[in-house]
Amino acid sequence: MCGIVGIVGNSSVNQAIYDGLTVLQHRGQDAAGIITINNHTFSLRKDNGLVKDVFHTRHMKRLQGNMGIGHVRYPTAGSSSSAEAQPFYVNSPFGISLAHNGNLTNAEQLKEELFSVARRHVNTTSDSEVLLNVLAHEIALTEKLTLDPEDIFKAVTAVNNKAVGGYAAIAMIIGQGMLAFRDPNGIRPLVFGKRDSSKGTEYMFASESVALDSCGFEFIRDVAPGESIFVSNDGQLFSQQCSEHASYSPCIFEFVYFARPDSTLDNVSVYAARVNMGTKLGEKVAKDWADKDIDVVIPIPETSCDIALEMATVLNIPYRQGFVKNRYIGRTFIMPGQEMRKKSVRQKLNAIGREFKGKNVLLVDDSIVRGTTSAQIVEMARESGAKNVYFASAAPEIRFPNVYGIDMPSVTELIAHGREVEDINESIGADGLIFQSLPDLIEAVAKENPEIKTFETSVFDGHYVAGDIDQAYLNRINDLRNDSAKSDNEQAMSSGLELHNQDSVD
Amino acid sequence: MCGIVGIVGNSSVNQAIYDGLTVLQHRGQDAAGIITINNHTFSLRKDNGLVKDVFHTRHMKRLQGNMGIGHVRYPTAGSSSSAEAQPFYVNSPFGISLAHNGNLTNAEQLKEELFSVARRHVNTTSDSEVLLNVLAHEIALTEKLTLDPEDIFKAVTAVNNKAVGGYAAIAMIIGQGMLAFRDPNGIRPLVFGKRDSSKGTEYMFASESVALDSCGFEFIRDVAPGESIFVSNDGQLFSQQCSEHASYSPCIFEFVYFARPDSTLDNVSVYAARVNMGTKLGEKVAKDWADKDIDVVIPIPETSCDIALEMATVLNIPYRQGFVKNRYIGRTFIMPGQEMRKKSVRQKLNAIGREFKGKNVLLVDDSIVRGTTSAQIVEMARESGAKNVYFASAAPEIRFPNVYGIDMPSVTELIAHGREVEDINESIGADGLIFQSLPDLIEAVAKENPEIKTFETSVFDGHYVAGDIDQAYLNRINDLRNDSAKSDNEQAMSSGLELHNQDSVD
Amino acid sequence: MCGIVGIVGNSSVNQAIYDGLTVLQHRGQDAAGIITINNHTFSLRKDNGLVKDVFHTRHMKRLQGNMGIGHVRYPTAGSSSSAEAQPFYVNSPFGISLAHNGNLTNAEQLKEELFSVARRHVNTTSDSEVLLNVLAHEIALTEKLTLDPEDIFKAVTAVNNKAVGGYAAIAMIIGQGMLAFRDPNGIRPLVFGKRDSSKGTEYMFASESVALDSCGFEFIRDVAPGESIFVSNDGQLFSQQCSEHASYSPCIFEFVYFARPDSTLDNVSVYAARVNMGTKLGEKVAKDWADKDIDVVIPIPETSCDIALEMATVLNIPYRQGFVKNRYIGRTFIMPGQEMRKKSVRQKLNAIGREFKGKNVLLVDDSIVRGTTSAQIVEMARESGAKNVYFASAAPEIRFPNVYGIDMPSVTELIAHGREVEDINESIGADGLIFQSLPDLIEAVAKENPEIKTFETSVFDGHYVAGDIDQAYLNRINDLRNDSAKSDNEQAMSSGLELHNQDSVD
Amino acid sequence: MCGIVGIVGNSSVNQAIYDGLTVLQHRGQDAAGIITINNHTFSLRKDNGLVKDVFHTRHMKRLQGNMGIGHVRYPTAGSSSSAEAQPFYVNSPFGISLAHNGNLTNAEQLKEELFSVARRHVNTTSDSEVLLNVLAHEIALTEKLTLDPEDIFKAVTAVNNKAVGGYAAIAMIIGQGMLAFRDPNGIRPLVFGKRDSSKGTEYMFASESVALDSCGFEFIRDVAPGESIFVSNDGQLFSQQCSEHASYSPCIFEFVYFARPDSTLDNVSVYAARVNMGTKLGEKVAKDWADKDIDVVIPIPETSCDIALEMATVLNIPYRQGFVKNRYIGRTFIMPGQEMRKKSVRQKLNAIGREFKGKNVLLVDDSIVRGTTSAQIVEMARESGAKNVYFASAAPEIRFPNVYGIDMPSVTELIAHGREVEDINESIGADGLIFQSLPDLIEAVAKENPEIKTFETSVFDGHYVAGDIDQAYLNRINDLRNDSAKSDNEQAMSSGLELHNQDSVD
Repeated sequence: MCGIVGIVGNSSVNQAIYDGLTVLQHRGQDAAGIITINNHTFSLRKDNGLVKDVFHTRHMKRLQGNMGIGHVRYPTAGSSSSAEAQPFYVNSPFGISLAHNGNLTNAEQLKEELFSVARRHVNTTSDSEVLLNVLAHEIALTEKLTLDPEDIFKAVTAVNNKAVGGYAAIAMIIGQGMLAFRDPNGIRPLVFGKRDSSKGTEYMFASESVALDSCGFEFIRDVAPGESIFVSNDGQLFSQQCSEHASYSPCIFEFVYFARPDSTLDNVSVYAARVNMGTKLGEKVAKDWADKDIDVVIPIPETSCDIALEMATVLNIPYRQGFVKNRYIGRTFIMPGQEMRKKSVRQKLNAIGREFKGKNVLLVDDSIVRGTTSAQIVEMARESGAKNVYFASAAPEIRFPNVYGIDMPSVTELIAHGREVEDINESIGADGLIFQSLPDLIEAVAKENPEIKTFETSVFDGHYVAGDIDQAYLNRINDLRNDSAKSDNEQAMSSGLELHNQDSVD
Repeated sequence: MCGIVGIVGNSSVNQAIYDGLTVLQHRGQDAAGIITINNHTFSLRKDNGLVKDVFHTRHMKRLQGNMGIGHVRYPTAGSSSSAEAQPFYVNSPFGISLAHNGNLTNAEQLKEELFSVARRHVNTTSDSEVLLNVLAHEIALTEKLTLDPEDIFKAVTAVNNKAVGGYAAIAMIIGQGMLAFRDPNGIRPLVFGKRDSSKGTEYMFASESVALDSCGFEFIRDVAPGESIFVSNDGQLFSQQCSEHASYSPCIFEFVYFARPDSTLDNVSVYAARVNMGTKLGEKVAKDWADKDIDVVIPIPETSCDIALEMATVLNIPYRQGFVKNRYIGRTFIMPGQEMRKKSVRQKLNAIGREFKGKNVLLVDDSIVRGTTSAQIVEMARESGAKNVYFASAAPEIRFPNVYGIDMPSVTELIAHGREVEDINESIGADGLIFQSLPDLIEAVAKENPEIKTFETSVFDGHYVAGDIDQAYLNRINDLRNDSAKSDNEQAMSSGLELHNQDSVD
Repeated sequence: MCGIVGIVGNSSVNQAIYDGLTVLQHRGQDAAGIITINNHTFSLRKDNGLVKDVFHTRHMKRLQGNMGIGHVRYPTAGSSSSAEAQPFYVNSPFGISLAHNGNLTNAEQLKEELFSVARRHVNTTSDSEVLLNVLAHEIALTEKLTLDPEDIFKAVTAVNNKAVGGYAAIAMIIGQGMLAFRDPNGIRPLVFGKRDSSKGTEYMFASESVALDSCGFEFIRDVAPGESIFVSNDGQLFSQQCSEHASYSPCIFEFVYFARPDSTLDNVSVYAARVNMGTKLGEKVAKDWADKDIDVVIPIPETSCDIALEMATVLNIPYRQGFVKNRYIGRTFIMPGQEMRKKSVRQKLNAIGREFKGKNVLLVDDSIVRGTTSAQIVEMARESGAKNVYFASAAPEIRFPNVYGIDMPSVTELIAHGREVEDINESIGADGLIFQSLPDLIEAVAKENPEIKTFETSVFDGHYVAGDIDQAYLNRINDLRNDSAKSDNEQAMSSGLELHNQDSVD
Repeated sequence: MCGIVGIVGNSSVNQAIYDGLTVLQHRGQDAAGIITINNHTFSLRKDNGLVKDVFHTRHMKRLQGNMGIGHVRYPTAGSSSSAEAQPFYVNSPFGISLAHNGNLTNAEQLKEELFSVARRHVNTTSDSEVLLNVLAHEIALTEKLTLDPEDIFKAVTAVNNKAVGGYAAIAMIIGQGMLAFRDPNGIRPLVFGKRDSSKGTEYMFASESVALDSCGFEFIRDVAPGESIFVSNDGQLFSQQCSEHASYSPCIFEFVYFARPDSTLDNVSVYAARVNMGTKLGEKVAKDWADKDIDVVIPIPETSCDIALEMATVLNIPYRQGFVKNRYIGRTFIMPGQEMRKKSVRQKLNAIGREFKGKNVLLVDDSIVRGTTSAQIVEMARESGAKNVYFASAAPEIRFPNVYGIDMPSVTELIAHGREVEDINESIGADGLIFQSLPDLIEAVAKENPEIKTFETSVFDGHYVAGDIDQAYLNRINDLRNDSAKSDNEQAMSSGLELHNQDSVD
């Protein structure tokens, strides 16, 4: 998962992009980058780290210009997606830069074609560099010194025909303007808005609406699946559907976990969707667990708080914030002759004893991935004196890998892979476990925008909306994500890291 | 406000002190330091920044030894307290280091006496360096090469007779052991616990019990007001009351705001105290505002969540998490020719529109200091569509300066200074404002430990329990804390910063 | 002036390139960079600073591969050449990187053609990025996936036909090999050598022969003017003359000042050339100043030591090292309210009083540029008690700008611009001043390799061997180099710096 | 070896101290520090590194005040002297800081006495911290709030009676003034000078006269052996002989190697002394080697250049600078799986072939320590084509350890330890080897100041002028200096490094 931002303004955009990236920081804390255009020249700053650590005054001074894009990256080592900091840049044709959220599932094939057809070299393992080069190649085919919107939309249409996967991208072409586009299934989110200044209208693209709010831009609408929007250098906005097969299938995990509650994506309030998840799950608990005498509903902070509060209301049981989240996390130093200590959830959470002692508690989390954290939390609840510990997950069982930009462990590490509720319950040591059903989850989200008929729900049902996923691909993904493989891959990939991301780790 | 930790163990203590400081990071994010003793030698690392930024592997490698103390500092520029990073160190007698939470109100006078009586030089404006030197001077008077616990307690008794203010301190004396003591009113908190290892019992001191929990130490008890505890080099623990005038008057603000909810201080669960505040305040709202048709109770995160939830229960009104706190905060760069933008609460909070639209909302905060943030939040609620915006403060009106270690703005900047509720309400622009009464606040905390008869409540009532505060002192404090004075002071003080805190700002 | 290195080896080349750059550090202390190819991927590290400061272990670990090039840069702010760190990189076609020493005098025109003909964007003001793109464009025209040496030589021939100026360049093409070429006049030096390993022959290119020596490579020969040499991926070496108009006109200033004495360039030992300069200048002094009773010959260290020693021998006068060069240079801090102190030669040199007191001294320097340093040195000699101070310059009067890669002050700042010896002597305050004549200088160098008939001597005679220099160009250069213009330019140029040189100044 | 500077001025002294330390950088490149007094407060900055790397603008801004001292440190790991950065500081009495050049041979004993008599803790292994505490203890005995010069001289007299070894020290006492003193044998150098300003006379102390020159101070005289000089806060200068047993025995190695040629120490011009060494050694060569047909005299740069030039004059043989010194030295990276390459003199020197080819060369070095470098240089001369290679050392055979502040290898690593010329010649592989005789060396220096009757020449003859050196001490030194022991010691000592030198290694 990543966050992207782009602004075509009438004055310096560096601070606004910085602010927008800060607001989207929850989508990626691994690396950050901003590129601007000033006087027909790109200025770029990107590095590993949080936005506040990557950009200092000296960098901001250089990031001059009224047009720029920004990116925050989620750590996805071991996966072929976004392994390097963005935005990326090519100098031919025109000078094009691009920032991207998502994952192309045919990146390897595209990379080979880029060389055989166009002798374009892709220097990293990032599919974003591939996407940029595919776009650059299509634009190169126009053979014009000045591009019309039609030229650009034609290029994006070709990109949409070639690229398979989920992607939301923002690109800048020197001398021409800014381009935003979203894959034909609309898997990854992308919105845009405007702000009127004395010098004319300014436009902003962002992964989530909350970034528009924070920068004082008025939400216009979501970029549609397969649609491309181009804002020319002189501030005119053009849009066009660039795919014949566009259909709405946004990633449902955005609503479960990734997006901020105060965002609205594809006309769905994330907050409202989570409250709906709470209603649905509360009703299921009421129905299935009528026999269980639950004393208190306790969320595992923070995503699940809104869900758990609504469940408590539905169940008419007290809601209590029984876990305190540690805001500051330190690290464990490995001293010569010492063993690495097991990572513990206790570094992240602490229980308020009095809310557990002698009670039947219902713990609520947004989802269960590996299950190891859930098991530790159940144990913590017991040690705090809980009589019975029940566990509810607002998302269904996660059984399949995500191939559209969400980094997840290897399939074999997913606790629900090949297991049923009983088994999983036993693994996490609870006295009862309940999952939201997939239809309920879909309904919880779709209720807020009935126009969305399907969602990207592959992690629950193994159905990949963009197609073209075979077992060979899944096996390869699995190998990359395997814990033991990760360190090797990181080693291998780092060799190329410096080219576009100099001296990233200081 | 600061956080302190000290451990006498049977193996390396650096990681445990680091972990303890991380857990106490909420007490101070400005600077951090650790000092250990190994082979009769001190090793020290301290610098400005968060614990995770100050200590790298190379520092931890040097912080060898089975005994050490740590400190996190709250930024209190413009005040005479803790202007420099801790722990401090003197080499005579024995080699003594000290970390301190609190403030001495007679530091200037003590500093002069130290020179005239003992020709001891205090190089910083930190009262902690003064406290260390007063202690060192008293220990020097023993004229022995090996100290008995009695020698140490005698020295602490003399310190308690000389020092006026609130202080909790942990000190190490090379070749002798570790010493912890708390001022005769017990204004600042200090707890201790133990852990059994195969090589014997290990002891830990900390500002809050939660630090003991996180390091696997079992809580023994609070250090009593005026009490001193000494753990000798060979691990024996001695304790003695070192003040004739000891009485319990802990700072009530710890429970309102500073301490973590999962801590227990002076036998009071902070969480329980806050729930009690919610009960009291809810009852007051029910009584005073029976006419107001409140639709929803919304906390201003995070401290007030537990309070607001309890109020909602008492009032039988829905509780909703209508504000989203931005976890990541960026900065505003001042570019050449640009003006500083006004700091906005919007960088910190965002509202979920649907929980405000058309509703009468009751916003709950732990306290109101300057009132500027409250005013912005009220405005944000209105812009989100609230019909009426009511505001409740879990603490009474703050009208007087704190002189015992809590950094507050100048008295004249306190919104409640010389004003009544009506005026304040008008200032923040709410449709109604209610404060917890001081008796209610005291009762909310005292309920959990009836043995505490009085609290340090000076910010509410102007009564300073340690005495000796005259108008001249308050005027001086006011001048220092005045915003316009702060920059000058920082300039002046920084001149000496390097001596004990080399190259602190990189 | 810059230094370049390239190695095609049979094992890791990073250390050898690092060592080679260190040996060439005298050619540029401003910035350094290394790029290697491993597994069809470039790894790059470049930054401002000395070689020893730019490359740390973490960078060297990433610079894997058996083929790589390196660059050290001379600070040439205000000039259009080498304003940014090298090597540069483009990803189309193949992935090509390039490091360059010299200057193109038609860079602006080439940059415009690159866009109009090939829509290639040049993002910096560096003519090296222009040269790389011209080369890339010519290679792109081949439209082949695998290049023969002929293809490459054809491309270089086209580059030689288009580029005007002095240049020695080393480039790498992914999947193909390494390419080195030198402008048709051979203005900038370039040598190559070989080293036999168990796995075959390894080749190295470098600006000076001393880099070959230090890396254990055996000198083969100089790259000829207009020649191009290609070492394929499998280690085969091909060479071809790629210019119809090639002729030998090496820059004579390399021998006067830039090159190391232990280098041999174009079959001329730099050391021997300098000794010859001493002979010639000694003879001129003997002839012209027979009346002057010189007591001692004192070099201004370090370049002129060998020259002065030979002059002393010719003149049969004692040679004394009367000036001590400060090896360590500090900086002058500008404190608030303080004025910048005038830079003084005294920070760099100190006189040994006894070698001056009461003597007629002949000071020898390699050349006189602005004359301000010479004036200060003359004054220092007088203050040390010299009776008469005579001054000899081993190079003739510098009267014209250099446009082939040597950074010099604006023409109007050259002390000899529009002045004769008498005037100059008066300006520097000496009791006598003598310059080497240009024929003598040429003879001193040419004596060591009679095959060289002409040299690039434009700074002395205004004749630019590569042609195409008109007054408009010289005026532009002059404006850029003007001291007052420099700061503006630095500001302007830095905007683009980050793209290929992220976070260069820390 | 270290360099020290102290200034009592009428305006800010930070820049002048910085400049003075830069000029003394040849005396120590390992660490640097400056401490100033402003408003009765010390400001300190010290760290590992060169002066230009340790002090940035932010540090200089803090180093306010009209009085300050500075220090540059030579790396002496494995020796008990100066293992940590200076200046050091104690806060009792008064606040005293001190910088020191030299070594105390009874530091261990003094350290124990400091604890048993005064319970003073010395936290590092640095004898400078010991010296500071001995001084502080003696000053503490005065029991006065204001010190007269007599009090201070009494304290220094006591220090001189207790401390054994060679030391030159500068100290500051807050509220009192600056103090400089030199051991009773005057082993380490110390000079002082003055500068008149509009506000009165300013004084400067420094290790070498060249530092006075560079800061515009007029040389007054050397501090005499055993003498102490005190400049009070109000700028009055007092001096007194503080030892009954003072006698002149300066370290002769200062003249051979350490001091700058443009310095005058104890009324001896270092340059003149070196020329005299050349005369003496030239005469010895003429006498002893009349049979050897030497073609050319070649110095091994840089110290020996003045010596070799004079020898050539005496011998009437050409002098040639046949070796080029590499000004830039890189490092060798140890990559995983690689072995450390042998350090080679070739990284430091390169030969000019034509000056060796077919000639009988006389190489001249200032001294021979381990002999490994000499052997490599002889080999390099042969590889460059020399027919016969003769070697002359301007210092006699080094056979004994230095205990007064010069870091040398373990005695067993000295090539001349227990060996005669024949053996040594064989070891370095020369065709002839000649050493200066000790009487000649003494005469060469003493000629410039006949008042000096004896020198500290222990490395040549094993006679330690300060006495008290027994075999046990020498054995201990030997163990510490042994190469294999060094890494252990560095490890051990670094534990305490942070206390007075925070975060020194970044």
